[in-house]
Amino acid sequence: MVQNGWQHTLDMAALSPAKFREIAADGGWTDTTDDICYGYAQANLVAVPEANALEFMLFCFHNQRACPMLDVTEPGSPHPLMVAPQADLRHDLPQYRIWKDGQVVAEPVDATVYWRDDLVSFLLGCSQTFEQSLKAAGVQFRRLGCFTSTIQCTPVGSFKGGIAVSGRLFQGMQDVMRAIQISSRLPSAHGAPLHIGDPRTIGIEDMSKPDLVAYPKAVIAEADETALWWACGITPQTVARAARLPYMITHYPGKMFITDRLSEQFAVL
Amino acid sequence: MVQNGWQHTLDMAALSPAKFREIAADGGWTDTTDDICYGYAQANLVAVPEANALEFMLFCFHNQRACPMLDVTEPGSPHPLMVAPQADLRHDLPQYRIWKDGQVVAEPVDATVYWRDDLVSFLLGCSQTFEQSLKAAGVQFRRLGCFTSTIQCTPVGSFKGGIAVSGRLFQGMQDVMRAIQISSRLPSAHGAPLHIGDPRTIGIEDMSKPDLVAYPKAVIAEADETALWWACGITPQTVARAARLPYMITHYPGKMFITDRLSEQFAVL
Repeated sequence: MVQNGWQHTLDMAALSPAKFREIAADGGWTDTTDDICYGYAQANLVAVPEANALEFMLFCFHNQRACPMLDVTEPGSPHPLMVAPQADLRHDLPQYRIWKDGQVVAEPVDATVYWRDDLVSFLLGCSQTFEQSLKAAGVQFRRLGCFTSTIQCTPVGSFKGGIAVSGRLFQGMQDVMRAIQISSRLPSAHGAPLHIGDPRTIGIEDMSKPDLVAYPKAVIAEADETALWWACGITPQTVARAARLPYMITHYPGKMFITDRLSEQFAVL
Repeated sequence: MVQNGWQHTLDMAALSPAKFREIAADGGWTDTTDDICYGYAQANLVAVPEANALEFMLFCFHNQRACPMLDVTEPGSPHPLMVAPQADLRHDLPQYRIWKDGQVVAEPVDATVYWRDDLVSFLLGCSQTFEQSLKAAGVQFRRLGCFTSTIQCTPVGSFKGGIAVSGRLFQGMQDVMRAIQISSRLPSAHGAPLHIGDPRTIGIEDMSKPDLVAYPKAVIAEADETALWWACGITPQTVARAARLPYMITHYPGKMFITDRLSEQFAVL
């Protein structure tokens, strides 16, 4: 894929986060970020009005597997001081979703005109971070997409519902174990899987038909493949939709904020 | 030490957290909790009005070494749903401090009459938790007390100042390494030390004279001892005092809330 001269190849993988954010801010990259800025932690964005921020922060805190907080800004600030102090969340992501009363009302590539002075921005860890760690360890996988599971969030105020999960297929128990070990070291990128194996246990009837994020071609599991299911950072979008949050700005799924922090800076032991 | 028939010995170490909290609620134990309910995570309490809660939660989030959040209640609830849902923070601790405008105005053994319906309670990890893990591994140490360091907190709103640290002396590099390894596994109990060795580097001129928590007899380091310095959960008390927070209820230093969660349930890998 080519975007304004940038190829979704090694030159994007080798970019510094600051350079990538500059390109994204200029509208030069509006695609997904899965293979971009290799080794750097990526983040989901959820910006909510200050009036809702304590309740949402409590929700994230009580649901850390789905919503691991990498940074939270002070009210009104678009600058994530912990993970990328020079960045500007209003335009440094490839694409956004603007939500009113739980509905998506726009999907702009720049959110500046939608920004409000009372927004508190949450950057939540992302599975694309541990996917890069899996690849770095030579662990192969096939993505299944994102699904609404029947594993319930810990409810906080008006926020509640099933945890969104992302599924991946692995061949052989050796790679299953390595995937569990590698992701366990990154609790800030959802940590260990929530479930191993049969998706019906967590309310997913057909793993070839994701309800939240699907790929153009349906993925059918082979007999020698095992599915692992991780909590997913789209969870806040699904619960905020159900709670009809008056206003919210998020990233567009798969098109994440790239932090200045290496994944390994977040790894536990 | 004997309190209403309970001895500060093995019978207190073997108590269940629920039983200990019942004793504390009845006024049957008003002493420190360092050797109580062996293996269970202990917590600092900081309860602040809802109007200050988002700012204080952001402060804790940006200062996780000093203020690792084990639980945060919904506004008005004295029940910590994550770590001890049956407990009541209004009276289940041995002793409290009541703060007005940054000053201690009372130190009751029951905080019920001081409680307010708008309080959000934060339970923050405690070094007494990793001390039990050190003892379980046969690592000997001598406590130095708690000091105000010159390592600065990340400021959030009106909360700022030097991080409070607790110091401990270890004999031999083998035990120093084990202490670093063991505490690193427990980021929710302050994690690895902030500093190794000479306390003057972090603004402590005389380690035999702690300014925050001192023991009856001054501790003088021997030539073969190395001091390790951990972030301390008294930090919120010192920064809230400086910020003249209008109202706050905390535990009395050393007299902690005992959770239902084993320390090992919080350990990373």
